[in-house]
Amino acid sequence: MDYFENVPKVQYEGKNAKSKYAFRHYNPEEIIMGKPMKDHLRFSVAFWHTMTEDGSDQFGDGTYQRNWEGSTPMETAKNRVDAFFEILEKLGAEYFCFHDVDIAPQGDSLKEFLENIDVMTDYIKGKMDKTGVKLLWNTANMFTHPTFVNGAATTNNADVYSMAAAQVKKGLDVSKKLNGENYVFWGGREGYENLLNTDMNFELDNLARFYQMVIDYAQKIDYHPQFLIEPKPKEPTKHQYDYDAATAMAFIQKYNLEDSFKLNLEANHATLAGHTFEHELNVAKNYNALGSLDANQGDLLLGWDTDEFPTDIYTATLAMYEVLDFGGIAPGGLNFDAKVRRTSFAMDDLILAHIAGMDTYARGLRAAAKMKDDNFFEQIIANRYESFSSGIGKQIVENKEDLESLTNYALSLNGVENKSGHIEHLKSLLNDYLV
Amino acid sequence: MDYFENVPKVQYEGKNAKSKYAFRHYNPEEIIMGKPMKDHLRFSVAFWHTMTEDGSDQFGDGTYQRNWEGSTPMETAKNRVDAFFEILEKLGAEYFCFHDVDIAPQGDSLKEFLENIDVMTDYIKGKMDKTGVKLLWNTANMFTHPTFVNGAATTNNADVYSMAAAQVKKGLDVSKKLNGENYVFWGGREGYENLLNTDMNFELDNLARFYQMVIDYAQKIDYHPQFLIEPKPKEPTKHQYDYDAATAMAFIQKYNLEDSFKLNLEANHATLAGHTFEHELNVAKNYNALGSLDANQGDLLLGWDTDEFPTDIYTATLAMYEVLDFGGIAPGGLNFDAKVRRTSFAMDDLILAHIAGMDTYARGLRAAAKMKDDNFFEQIIANRYESFSSGIGKQIVENKEDLESLTNYALSLNGVENKSGHIEHLKSLLNDYLV
Amino acid sequence: MDYFENVPKVQYEGKNAKSKYAFRHYNPEEIIMGKPMKDHLRFSVAFWHTMTEDGSDQFGDGTYQRNWEGSTPMETAKNRVDAFFEILEKLGAEYFCFHDVDIAPQGDSLKEFLENIDVMTDYIKGKMDKTGVKLLWNTANMFTHPTFVNGAATTNNADVYSMAAAQVKKGLDVSKKLNGENYVFWGGREGYENLLNTDMNFELDNLARFYQMVIDYAQKIDYHPQFLIEPKPKEPTKHQYDYDAATAMAFIQKYNLEDSFKLNLEANHATLAGHTFEHELNVAKNYNALGSLDANQGDLLLGWDTDEFPTDIYTATLAMYEVLDFGGIAPGGLNFDAKVRRTSFAMDDLILAHIAGMDTYARGLRAAAKMKDDNFFEQIIANRYESFSSGIGKQIVENKEDLESLTNYALSLNGVENKSGHIEHLKSLLNDYLV
Amino acid sequence: MDYFENVPKVQYEGKNAKSKYAFRHYNPEEIIMGKPMKDHLRFSVAFWHTMTEDGSDQFGDGTYQRNWEGSTPMETAKNRVDAFFEILEKLGAEYFCFHDVDIAPQGDSLKEFLENIDVMTDYIKGKMDKTGVKLLWNTANMFTHPTFVNGAATTNNADVYSMAAAQVKKGLDVSKKLNGENYVFWGGREGYENLLNTDMNFELDNLARFYQMVIDYAQKIDYHPQFLIEPKPKEPTKHQYDYDAATAMAFIQKYNLEDSFKLNLEANHATLAGHTFEHELNVAKNYNALGSLDANQGDLLLGWDTDEFPTDIYTATLAMYEVLDFGGIAPGGLNFDAKVRRTSFAMDDLILAHIAGMDTYARGLRAAAKMKDDNFFEQIIANRYESFSSGIGKQIVENKEDLESLTNYALSLNGVENKSGHIEHLKSLLNDYLV
Repeated sequence: MDYFENVPKVQYEGKNAKSKYAFRHYNPEEIIMGKPMKDHLRFSVAFWHTMTEDGSDQFGDGTYQRNWEGSTPMETAKNRVDAFFEILEKLGAEYFCFHDVDIAPQGDSLKEFLENIDVMTDYIKGKMDKTGVKLLWNTANMFTHPTFVNGAATTNNADVYSMAAAQVKKGLDVSKKLNGENYVFWGGREGYENLLNTDMNFELDNLARFYQMVIDYAQKIDYHPQFLIEPKPKEPTKHQYDYDAATAMAFIQKYNLEDSFKLNLEANHATLAGHTFEHELNVAKNYNALGSLDANQGDLLLGWDTDEFPTDIYTATLAMYEVLDFGGIAPGGLNFDAKVRRTSFAMDDLILAHIAGMDTYARGLRAAAKMKDDNFFEQIIANRYESFSSGIGKQIVENKEDLESLTNYALSLNGVENKSGHIEHLKSLLNDYLV
Repeated sequence: MDYFENVPKVQYEGKNAKSKYAFRHYNPEEIIMGKPMKDHLRFSVAFWHTMTEDGSDQFGDGTYQRNWEGSTPMETAKNRVDAFFEILEKLGAEYFCFHDVDIAPQGDSLKEFLENIDVMTDYIKGKMDKTGVKLLWNTANMFTHPTFVNGAATTNNADVYSMAAAQVKKGLDVSKKLNGENYVFWGGREGYENLLNTDMNFELDNLARFYQMVIDYAQKIDYHPQFLIEPKPKEPTKHQYDYDAATAMAFIQKYNLEDSFKLNLEANHATLAGHTFEHELNVAKNYNALGSLDANQGDLLLGWDTDEFPTDIYTATLAMYEVLDFGGIAPGGLNFDAKVRRTSFAMDDLILAHIAGMDTYARGLRAAAKMKDDNFFEQIIANRYESFSSGIGKQIVENKEDLESLTNYALSLNGVENKSGHIEHLKSLLNDYLV
Repeated sequence: MDYFENVPKVQYEGKNAKSKYAFRHYNPEEIIMGKPMKDHLRFSVAFWHTMTEDGSDQFGDGTYQRNWEGSTPMETAKNRVDAFFEILEKLGAEYFCFHDVDIAPQGDSLKEFLENIDVMTDYIKGKMDKTGVKLLWNTANMFTHPTFVNGAATTNNADVYSMAAAQVKKGLDVSKKLNGENYVFWGGREGYENLLNTDMNFELDNLARFYQMVIDYAQKIDYHPQFLIEPKPKEPTKHQYDYDAATAMAFIQKYNLEDSFKLNLEANHATLAGHTFEHELNVAKNYNALGSLDANQGDLLLGWDTDEFPTDIYTATLAMYEVLDFGGIAPGGLNFDAKVRRTSFAMDDLILAHIAGMDTYARGLRAAAKMKDDNFFEQIIANRYESFSSGIGKQIVENKEDLESLTNYALSLNGVENKSGHIEHLKSLLNDYLV
Repeated sequence: MDYFENVPKVQYEGKNAKSKYAFRHYNPEEIIMGKPMKDHLRFSVAFWHTMTEDGSDQFGDGTYQRNWEGSTPMETAKNRVDAFFEILEKLGAEYFCFHDVDIAPQGDSLKEFLENIDVMTDYIKGKMDKTGVKLLWNTANMFTHPTFVNGAATTNNADVYSMAAAQVKKGLDVSKKLNGENYVFWGGREGYENLLNTDMNFELDNLARFYQMVIDYAQKIDYHPQFLIEPKPKEPTKHQYDYDAATAMAFIQKYNLEDSFKLNLEANHATLAGHTFEHELNVAKNYNALGSLDANQGDLLLGWDTDEFPTDIYTATLAMYEVLDFGGIAPGGLNFDAKVRRTSFAMDDLILAHIAGMDTYARGLRAAAKMKDDNFFEQIIANRYESFSSGIGKQIVENKEDLESLTNYALSLNGVENKSGHIEHLKSLLNDYLV
C-alpha cells in the first residue's frame, strides 16, 4: 500500500460525504432487487488506461504523474501490478481486465514476450489469490505494434496472421490459468485504412477462420470463457469491420459463430457509430448476445474516442435498465474502459475518476431498479402494443394470417385510429426517476 | 409530347455539345466491355421525385413550376403519367420506379385507393407497351399517410399492420401485371422515434413475419420479382431498423430470408450511415446481396437526406467498379432517387438534372471499365495479399493450420516485414482514370 | 375556454403530483435568489409550433389532431388566437412569440397580407390587454413563401428584397403596437444552397444594409425593442450566414451593428453547429450580446433541427447558470421553440409538452441557483486562475509585461508546475446539484 | 543527396510519365495566366509531418522507416535538416515551414532549447542560402510539451504564459533571421477541455494581450512578417477558440487586431468545422484576411484531423479559384500540412505523397485558370444578380432606399418572379472543367 499513500480505502458515506475519497451513491453490499449492488454492477478496472497510459494525445506528450517507473521494464511491470491491486482494493472493485502488452514487456522477440507473459501472470495470479479479485476478461493487443499495421487476423501478411495466432493462443492459456470469465476480441486494426487496396471479403473470411481456430483450441484445452467481440465503427482505421452490434451479428451469423460469441459493448463506440448505448444493448439483447459492458462515455460533439469516465446519469440509468431486463450482465461486468483527461494528471485522479464512474452507475442501477419495481416501462409498452394481444393482432403474432386475409380485414375497417405516444410527458416522468 | 415542348430528344453529342439538352458522356449504344452502355447502367427515373414533389422542405412551401395539374386527382394522375413517359422517352431511359401513392390518388378509403391503383396501372401498362419502357421496381408508400405514424409492419397497431398488408398485396399484384423486375421495401417508418416506448424485438419479429407473408403470396401467385430491402440509418424516424447494408444482413440472416431478399443501396443513405457508397456495395457483394442502386448523392457536411442528383465522379466511378466486379447490376438498375434542388424549380431542370446524373454515371462506367481493362485494382490487390497464395498463407486459407501450429511457425520467424501500401500514390493514379 | 376542455389550469403540485396536468417543479411565485421563478424564466410559448404546425415532416403528412379549423382562413386565424391564449392562461405563461405568417393569412397579395396582419394584431392586442400576457418578440417569416426561395435580405432579386422590407416594416409597426420587448431576425434562407453560384460578400453587404434600414426606421417611429439575430448553421440552406454566435458577432462587428443587435440563442441550433448550448451563451456573454433564448433541444445523434421540447436537465442547469451569471435574461426570455413529436399528436400533448419543458427549466434554475449560492463554479475558477491575481500574473493582466520581460522571467524559472483540473471529480459533484 | 538515393530529382513528364517519381501535372515553369505555375502555387513542405513524425496514432506505435536517426539529439536534428533539404530540392519546392520544436531539441531547460534553436537556425540558414529555398512561415509549438497542458497564451498559469512568450519571442527573432514571409499562430491548446472550469472571457483577453505584445515586439525589432491565425474547431481540446474563419474574425475585430493578422486556412480544419475549404477561403476573402493555405484534406466520414495529402480534384480546383479571384496567395503559399498514412511507411512515400499533392493542386490551378479565362463563374454570378445592377436594385445598393420606400415599391409589384439556379446543370458543366 505504497503508491497512493494519501488515499484511504474508499467507503460509502452517502450524499453528504465529507471526504472526496468516498462513494456518495455506490454502497456495495446494499441489496437492490434481491442482490448486493456489487453483484449487479460487477465493476472492473482496466489495466491499460489505469496503469500504462501517460496522457499523451495526437498533439501532445504525456502529462500523467506516476510513481511506478522501475529501473527495468520487468520491474516497472511488477510495480504496476502492485499499484493496480492497491487501486482495486481501495476501490473495492472485484474485477479487472487487461491486454497482454499491458502487463508484460514485449521484449525483442515473440519468445521473450510470451515468457514475460508467463512470469507476469504468475505474479498476477498471486495477487488474485491473495485479494480475491477476479479476471473479468483479458485480450491480446494486436494493434499497437507496427507488426499489425495492416491488421492481425485481417492482415494481408500471412506471417502477421501467425503472430496474431501466437498471441491469442497465449491469451487463452492465460485466461485458463487466471480463470477469466470472458475473453475479448477488439479488432483495433481489423478494418481498412482505404477500401481501394483492400479485399474485404478475403479479410473477413480470414477473420472467421481465426475465430474458428480459437473455438477449436478452447475445446482442446477444455476451457470455456465467454468469447466476446467488441464493436467499434472507426478509429484507428477508417472503417472497422465490427462497426456496431448489428454489423457484428451479421458477421457472427454469416460464419456460424453464434454459439460461441457474444458482444462486449462500449458506450463511446456506440455513439461513434451513431447509436445510443442503450440501443446497442437492446440490439444485443434481441440477438441474445449481450455479453459485457465497457462503461465509459464519449462527447457527442466530438468525432473520436474520448473514453471518458461515465458521469451521464441518463445513459447509466438506461443501460442498467437493459441489464436488469436481460436478467443481469454476468458472466460479463462493467469495465471502466476510461481514462482520466490529460488535464487530470495527478495520481489521485485515478481514484477520483473511478469513484465518479462507480457512483454514476450506482445511481443508474437505483433508478433502473425503481423503474423495474414500478413496471414503469413495462406498462407503457403493454398499453402501447395491446392491439396485438387479442383479435387480429393476436392472430398475426400467432402466424395465422396472410396478405389476403389481412387485406380482407383491412377492407372491412372504417379507418384506423392510432394513439399518441405522449413521449414528452414520458421523458419528463423519466427525469423524476433519475434523481 | 406536350409537357416539355422546348426540350428535344436528348442525344449524345460528346464533350463539345452545343445544346444543354445533350449528353456529353452518355452514349447509350456505345459498347463498353462487350455491352452497350445502357445495358450496364439500366437507368431508371423515379416517379415520386420527378412527378409528385413540389420543392417544399421543412421550412418552405413548394417552388416547382409544373404544368400537369388537372381538375381532378385522377386527371392529374393521368397527366403525370403522360408527362413522365415523355421524360423517359426524351432521356432514353428504359426503366422507371414508383410507389403506389405516386401514381394513384388515395381517395377516401382503402377500397378506393386500390381501385385507383388498378385504373392507373392499366393506364401505365398501355404506355409501357407502347414505348418499351420497363418497370425496374415498384413499392408501397407506408410512411406518408398518418395511418403509418408509428410504422407499418413494425407498428404497434394491428389494424395498421393489416392496412400495410393490403397495400403490399396490391403492390405484388401490380408488379406481376407490369412485369416488374424487382420489388422494394424501404421502411420509412420501420424504426423508432424513441426507444423508451418501443419494443424493438417485437417489432422486428413482426417485420420478419410480414416478409414471410410476402414470400408466401408471391409463391401463390407464381410471380417472383427480386425482393429488395433498402437500408437507411435515420430520417424520418430517429432510428431506422435497416440502418445499413450490414444491419439489414443481420436481420435477413436472423429470420432466414437470404433466399428471397437482396439489397437496394442508396448513396445518400450510405453516407448518412457513415459509409461510402462503394463500401455499402462491397458489403452487399460479400453477402451476395447486391440487388439494385439508388443513384443519388448527399452532402457530407449535412446530416439529412438531400437526395441530390449524382455529379460526383469519384463515387460514380467506384460504384460502377463494384458493379462491374459483381458481374453487372441486372435485374437491378440505377434509379435516380434524386430531386432537383428547391432553387431549380423550372420545368427543364428535370431534364437537365437527369442529364447531369446520366453523364456522371457514364463517366463512372468509362473509368471503371478502363480500370478493369488494366487490372488496375486487381494487380494492387494481388500484390498486396500475395503472402496468402503460397506457403503458410496458403495453408491458412486452406484451413490446414491451427493456433498451435501457427504459434510454432511464428516462433520460428525472425521478425516480420510488412510492405507499404503507398496509398497516396495509388490515389493519385486513380485520379488519372477519373478524367 | 373551449379548446382544451379537459385540461384544468396547470398548478404546481410538487414531485408527487397526482395529475398529469400539474407542474412537479415549476412553482411560478416561489422566490429563488430574491425573485419569483417566473421572473427568472420568463417563459414564452411559440405560436408557430403550437398553433400552425400539423406534424408533417419530409416523409409524411400531418398527424396532429386539432380542433380550431374554421371555415375561412381568417376564422381559423381567430380560432387559433383564442386557443393559443387558452393555452397561455392554462400554463400560466406570460410571454409569447410569433411570425407574421403564423397569425395572419397571406392572402393573394402583399396588400392583403398586411391588412390581415393589422386585423389580427388588433385581435391579439385585445387578448393581451385582457390577460396581461406580453409579447416577448415577433418576427417576419421570410423563408416559407416561394418568393424567398433564394433568400430575403440576401436574395439575388431586388424585388424580393423590397418584399422583405415591407414585411419587416410591418413587423416593427406591430412590435410597437403590441409593445414587443424584442424583435428577432432568423434568416431562414439567408445563406446559400450552393456556393458555386453565390456572391457571399455581396449578399452580406445587402444584409447589413437591410439591418441599417431597420435601425433607421425604428429610430423614426421612436420604438426601440432589442433587436436579436438568431444563429443557425444549416437547414434549410446548406450554409446559413448566421452560423453560430461567434459568426454572428463577426458580422455584427464588421458592419458596426453592436449597439443595436444582440443574439437569440437556440439549444438545437447550438448543437447543430457543434457547440453546447452553454457554450453559445458563454460566447454571447463575452460579447455582451446575450439577448434571449429558444429553449428546446436536439438529438445529438441526428443531423437536423428536431426542435424537441427540452427535457435534458444538464443543459437546462448549465444554461440557467449562464443566465444567472449574466444577471438575468430580461428583456429576453425563454421561448419554447419546440414542437411535439409527430407521434404526440393528441391535443393535450401541447399542454403536457410545455409542462415538461417548464419543469425541466425550473429544475435547471433551482440547480443553478444552488450552485450560485455555494459559489460552486466561482471557487473552482478562482482557484484555477489564481496565478493571475498576484506577481507576474497580475503584471500580465495589467499590461505591464512584454515579450522580452516575460522571456527574462521565464528564463529565471526552474521549471513550471501545473495543477490537475480533477474534471471527473468536478463532474461528479455537479451531478449532485442536478437532482 | 544521401537519404533518398533511389529517388531522382522529380521532373514534369506529363500524363504518360513512366517513372513514379515524376510530375504528371505540375510543370513548375509553365505559364498560367501570365505567371509560372510555381509562383501561383508557392508550394511549401512541412518540417513536422515530413521529418519528425513516426506514424504513431492513438492506438499504435510508429511505423515509418526513416534513416536519419543520429547518436545525439543534435545530430539527429542536423540529419533531418539535411534530409529535408534533399526532399525540397528533389521536389523543386521553394518554401518550407516549421515549428521550433521540429528543428531543435528542447533539452532540459528553456535556455538550452533557445540555444539549440539558434544553432539549428544557423544551420538551416546555410542550407537556405545555398539552395535558394525560402521560409514561408515558422511557428512556436506550444501544445506538445506538458507545460502547455492547459494552454499557452490562454493558460490558467502565469508561469506558462511567460514560457509561451519566450518561445514566441524567439520565433520572431528566427523569422527575422531567416526572412520568413509569415508567422503563424495555431493554438493547439488555446481552447478548453471542459467549459465547467474555464473562464473563457479571461482567457481570450489574455490571448489578445499576447498578440498585442507580438505586434509591439515586431515593431521594436523592425521586422514585419504577415501574422496569421490558423482556425481549427476541435482537437486536441474539446473546443478551440479559433473555431473557424468567422470565429477568428470575430476575435480579431473585438480586439482590434485587423491590421496585423490574417488567416492561415487548412482544408481539414474547414471540414471539421462543418465547412468546405472553399467556403473558408471565401469568408477570409470577404474580411480581406486570406493569408495562406494548409493544403491537405480530411475524410468527411471521420471526425478527427487526418491531415491527408490532398488528392481531391474538386477541392483543389475550387480553392485555387478563390486564390485566383483574390489575386494570388502571396506572401502566403500552399503548405502541405499533411502526413503519409501510417500504412505508407516507406521512405519514398514522402516523395510520392508530395508528388500526389503537387499534381492535384496543379490540376486545380489549371482548371481554375480555365474557368477564369472563360469567365465561367463570373457570368453565372452576373446573370444571377443582375436585378441589382439597375432600377430599384441599384438604388438599394447605393443606399438610397429605406423600409418605407421599399414597402411602397413592393406594394406596387404584381407578384415577384424568381429565376431557377439550374444548379445541377452547373455542377455538370463544372465537371468538364475538372479534367
